[in-house]
Amino acid sequence: MAVEKTMEKIVALAKSRGYVFPGSDIYGGLANSWDYGPLGVEFKNNIKKAWWKKFIQESPYNVGLDSAILMNPEVWVASGHVGGFSDPLMDCKECKARFRADKIVEDHMAANGAEVASADGWSKEQLKEYIDNNNIDCPKCGKHNYTEIRQFNLMFKTFQGVTEDAKAEIYLRPETAQGIFVNFKSVQRTSRKKIPFGIGQIGKSFRNEITPGNFIFRTREFEQMELEFFCKPGTDLEWFSYWKNYCFNFLKNLSMKEENLRFRDHGEEELSFYSNATSDIEFKFPFGWGELWGIADRTDYDLNQHAKHSGQDLNYLDPVTNEKYVPYVIEPSLGADRVLLAFLCDAYDEEELEDGDSRTVLRLHPALAPFKAAVMPLSKKLSEKSLEVYEKLSKKFNVDYDEAGSIGKRYRREDEIGTPYCITIDFDTLEDDSVTVRDRDTMNQVRIKIDELEKFIEEKLEF
Amino acid sequence: MAVEKTMEKIVALAKSRGYVFPGSDIYGGLANSWDYGPLGVEFKNNIKKAWWKKFIQESPYNVGLDSAILMNPEVWVASGHVGGFSDPLMDCKECKARFRADKIVEDHMAANGAEVASADGWSKEQLKEYIDNNNIDCPKCGKHNYTEIRQFNLMFKTFQGVTEDAKAEIYLRPETAQGIFVNFKSVQRTSRKKIPFGIGQIGKSFRNEITPGNFIFRTREFEQMELEFFCKPGTDLEWFSYWKNYCFNFLKNLSMKEENLRFRDHGEEELSFYSNATSDIEFKFPFGWGELWGIADRTDYDLNQHAKHSGQDLNYLDPVTNEKYVPYVIEPSLGADRVLLAFLCDAYDEEELEDGDSRTVLRLHPALAPFKAAVMPLSKKLSEKSLEVYEKLSKKFNVDYDEAGSIGKRYRREDEIGTPYCITIDFDTLEDDSVTVRDRDTMNQVRIKIDELEKFIEEKLEF
Repeated sequence: MAVEKTMEKIVALAKSRGYVFPGSDIYGGLANSWDYGPLGVEFKNNIKKAWWKKFIQESPYNVGLDSAILMNPEVWVASGHVGGFSDPLMDCKECKARFRADKIVEDHMAANGAEVASADGWSKEQLKEYIDNNNIDCPKCGKHNYTEIRQFNLMFKTFQGVTEDAKAEIYLRPETAQGIFVNFKSVQRTSRKKIPFGIGQIGKSFRNEITPGNFIFRTREFEQMELEFFCKPGTDLEWFSYWKNYCFNFLKNLSMKEENLRFRDHGEEELSFYSNATSDIEFKFPFGWGELWGIADRTDYDLNQHAKHSGQDLNYLDPVTNEKYVPYVIEPSLGADRVLLAFLCDAYDEEELEDGDSRTVLRLHPALAPFKAAVMPLSKKLSEKSLEVYEKLSKKFNVDYDEAGSIGKRYRREDEIGTPYCITIDFDTLEDDSVTVRDRDTMNQVRIKIDELEKFIEEKLEF
Repeated sequence: MAVEKTMEKIVALAKSRGYVFPGSDIYGGLANSWDYGPLGVEFKNNIKKAWWKKFIQESPYNVGLDSAILMNPEVWVASGHVGGFSDPLMDCKECKARFRADKIVEDHMAANGAEVASADGWSKEQLKEYIDNNNIDCPKCGKHNYTEIRQFNLMFKTFQGVTEDAKAEIYLRPETAQGIFVNFKSVQRTSRKKIPFGIGQIGKSFRNEITPGNFIFRTREFEQMELEFFCKPGTDLEWFSYWKNYCFNFLKNLSMKEENLRFRDHGEEELSFYSNATSDIEFKFPFGWGELWGIADRTDYDLNQHAKHSGQDLNYLDPVTNEKYVPYVIEPSLGADRVLLAFLCDAYDEEELEDGDSRTVLRLHPALAPFKAAVMPLSKKLSEKSLEVYEKLSKKFNVDYDEAGSIGKRYRREDEIGTPYCITIDFDTLEDDSVTVRDRDTMNQVRIKIDELEKFIEEKLEF
């Protein structure tokens, strides 16, 4: 029998087991903000480490960066965010509800079986026309009496310095990518990298979304993992294809099921005017297919914009051929919170056991699981030996220690939070210095020497 | 001859080698914002990982958290930040320069040989009186004609949602600590921790400082590593002492020189009214002793404030004795950027060599060094073998690959960025599968089998 994975179940597990809590909860929260609890922060750190390992550390092409969230506001003029990074808003005059006009259109398209339900890049006029022509009523009160559509900029504003005048007005970055573009020259020069090479970074971004939602799928404060890969014009489509595959394999190697993944290439009408090609990796969330990883060939658009606005020369001089050019850019952009939700949904499972019992189990790849193992004494008399094992392992891995309740109950608890290995210390351990290791997924048990535990776990973490 | 460590040298090295760049540089920067380049981000990540390892992973007491930067504004009313988190500002009426009145007073105290040069917690009136009584003139123009002192709140404000009215006004958190306090109950319940236990987190905070400065010592956007340790009232001073030592040993174990460290206990007059004890670990920066790590016994102040303002019961019920109480809190609070600067200054060295040559070397602990090793072919004909070694090692560590210039020049380059081991591949390597490993600090060379390199490096990373 197929397991029914619902957002309700996943949110409830996340909250009750310390993965994700509603933000500012004791004060009634703050609209769609979330805090990562003890398990959530380990899980998220593991995802970020995995990305960094594959995209920076192991890649012969790429280096890392950590640029500031607060940047000179000219950056956002050059990038187009001041002028164009906005949502089309519309109010219902009857019930005062506020909507994104593009969302209403897309929902209508989807409900009427459109294959591509996207109003990306539509003008206010196009949206208005669609809504009127299709007689779309207010989703809340059912009437049809809307205000005009107006553009609302999604950047969070703040003020630096002592005054609140326009001069001191700055923005919280809406993406990490621009921090990479403005550092392109400094990074290239100091790291002595030659084209093709990439710069990756992980960091918080902020978007004043009107309708955040679906748990941590879309939030106003979120964390990105972005790579900007600089290559020679003309080689861009080749590299675009390279990084598409690289990203897909990253997810697969971390055990994400292929049946829950698909590519969606952007058609002509959906492509940004400067893009040569764009493709999303989509994931099948409980609420439907959603964008997970955007991979875009952005050509030389960003570097040209910054060259123009800053007056700096952002050309690259090829040291071998002496050619001078503005590199093209391939950008794979991934949200850490969103991919965490995808891994969580993908791993969630419920299982009937042979004895008629049932269990909930998170089948997370060991590299991503918050605890790599749980150490469990079979009796409280074995605490000393157990703590010895716990201390030894915790120098290398994040390890749980659990001595409360029956072994069966402890197994269920660890299954539910995704701990891949339960290590039981019994009275034989005092004699043979060995322990029983139980596998989360197969529930098989093996006897292992304490001295070999570290290597045993280490090997399972590879991906 | 003692090396003269100046901020100029350290900032120049940081910029030229890709540790730290001025933020938004191609647009003329943004007052005292900084971006971490390819080496800087690795260095900073290593510092954060080291903290997490010792304070969360290896500690049997503590668990982690990652709470949001944007919180319900009531949090900051309860914590006292809305009411009292401000700097006393004063302008010179003659030259229009703007100052922090407390800084002017402290500078005057220090210049006149005061042992404790601190005006922490002084009222506007006290500051004014000191400035007038001591006839302190404007540090910029030398005149004495000031405006009144007024309080300026240091929290960055922004607006969430579609309107800019007061209702949607929220703050960028000025510290990560409050995110821990408001999650105290959720974390305790879901992690089933018993008192004493701690919650730690690493994250960005923002303070609209009037006079940021000294490179990354004080910046408006910065990253904190904070632990809130909850214990039974009456045991707090014991734990205060425990964490003081723990923090000090953390720095020492990562090779920070003891001669550059000292404790400074806060005297009666400097202590916050709710604090039972506070002590700073100070570091000797090139510009003088500066606060590095604040360790404070905050009693039950914060939890009581949040209980009062949220109406929630934040008592802890001891499951063994059935006692009910609000725990006391020990808070060791460390800035990631600041301790990075301290490690950088501490490690910086210049050395005369036997052959009359000289070198700049960053004597970073291998656990903190951006590259753990650099792989260098002695000849370009050895590239294939060298890349094999590089690929093997880069699965485990961040490793550099350098084939440009003489070996001597490459050694100097790696010394200057703190790479602890240079691995040279020569023609013998093709025969004996061994390489020459040169130690950054001693410059001694040993011959090692390629298969043993991983273990060799791994062992040096322990701390």
